[in-house]
Amino acid sequence: MAASDRFSVLAILFLFFLGQIPNALPQSIIQISPRNHRVSDQDLLYCDSWRFSVETNDAGFWPTIPKRCENYVENYVTGDRYRSDSEFVAGDSLAFVRSLQMNDDGKDAWIFDIDETLLSNLPYYEAHGFGAEVFDETPFDDWVDLAEAPALAASLSLYNELEQLGFKIFLLTGRSEYQRNATEKNLLYSGYKNWERLILRGPSDQHKPAIVYKSEKRSELVNEGYTIHGSSGDQWSDLMGFAVAQRSFKLPNPMYYIA
Amino acid sequence: MAASDRFSVLAILFLFFLGQIPNALPQSIIQISPRNHRVSDQDLLYCDSWRFSVETNDAGFWPTIPKRCENYVENYVTGDRYRSDSEFVAGDSLAFVRSLQMNDDGKDAWIFDIDETLLSNLPYYEAHGFGAEVFDETPFDDWVDLAEAPALAASLSLYNELEQLGFKIFLLTGRSEYQRNATEKNLLYSGYKNWERLILRGPSDQHKPAIVYKSEKRSELVNEGYTIHGSSGDQWSDLMGFAVAQRSFKLPNPMYYIA
Repeated sequence: MAASDRFSVLAILFLFFLGQIPNALPQSIIQISPRNHRVSDQDLLYCDSWRFSVETNDAGFWPTIPKRCENYVENYVTGDRYRSDSEFVAGDSLAFVRSLQMNDDGKDAWIFDIDETLLSNLPYYEAHGFGAEVFDETPFDDWVDLAEAPALAASLSLYNELEQLGFKIFLLTGRSEYQRNATEKNLLYSGYKNWERLILRGPSDQHKPAIVYKSEKRSELVNEGYTIHGSSGDQWSDLMGFAVAQRSFKLPNPMYYIA
Repeated sequence: MAASDRFSVLAILFLFFLGQIPNALPQSIIQISPRNHRVSDQDLLYCDSWRFSVETNDAGFWPTIPKRCENYVENYVTGDRYRSDSEFVAGDSLAFVRSLQMNDDGKDAWIFDIDETLLSNLPYYEAHGFGAEVFDETPFDDWVDLAEAPALAASLSLYNELEQLGFKIFLLTGRSEYQRNATEKNLLYSGYKNWERLILRGPSDQHKPAIVYKSEKRSELVNEGYTIHGSSGDQWSDLMGFAVAQRSFKLPNPMYYIA
């Protein structure tokens, strides 16, 4: 084999392995290019107030982000502030954990939501206007099946810390049973492991509002003897209702609202 | 009397009446000079995330604002954003009111907190670091006795609109019975009128956490047959607990936290 042929083979092998790397390594960090849309001072003031209003749940239901805030939201979710806000909430959660008295009876529980809490669907929403379009279940389900959502870095760190402290971790998601395999695959791919239970919507949960379904599932855990110390979610419907956790942690999400 | 003497008397009378005007007219708008402290990009990112964390209640209890956010909070509460956020929340409240079905049985109720909800204590906090100092009850009580707190403009508009729509308005405050006269005087001075009931802490409420005291008082209203459609407050302890309103509206307040 001539030297040039050997080089070609090496080059092909190199390119082959290069192509494999993104699928072979856990892809736990969101890789998305930051937007720097120009937003006028008036829109900035309005959209900051809009974001206050949705993150405190003052707004109640909203179907899509306001037209004039589309660029603002793109800047936010692709930029430093989303990461910073997420890290702050993880810090709040850890500060609480360090202050609490665990029962150490194997029943100390923490609940995590999945979408926009453990896993980021930014690559999907990037292709769908970051919340500018009305939610469409069909393409989103195709995205879920790909099992390629990256982890939210701050949540992954918090998750690992809680797991090492001995918390039983429950994943309580609005996803359905038929998505169990894809969801487990995605969680492992993004670096999550050793959860106690993954709770998905069964046939009888399909038409319940998230706040009812999630409250019922929390209630079942309480009846099993678990102490729900904390709960992390990007939607108020992850956190409110009944059988709520001792402390609830609202992660940022200005892209969509789930009742 | 010479012409120059007559002019002097008129000038003195003019100055005398000018001095009286601020006390004679309802002073319903916050008059405070906007701060424009220089805040570094890192502090801005950190303090925006801190504000997210306290406004969503992720932070839980916090005694004073973080040192590095003192200038940020001064800029916020004296600037456009506090006004804009407050107006947005009032708008959310009105949008909800327009969507609801009133019972028209004389029992349609709305609850307002007072401090930093109907009345602004910014003139007091301006002299006390805008939340940089630990709360001190003695000077604050002296300030309450002055009965000079201005109205939050957005809340006054909302209040008037609700009153005209036929809501029974309940004022539920952490202030104590001995402050009833000063509180009523201040409310009237700032333009509020025709409330159904002003509920203050009685002797048996003194040592209850706000969230318990306020839940108990809401519960009494429910037992009297009132439908609590909405509740407005700057603290989560105004809004959470039991016997909560159909919808709760969290007003901004990055200056202090009440459990």
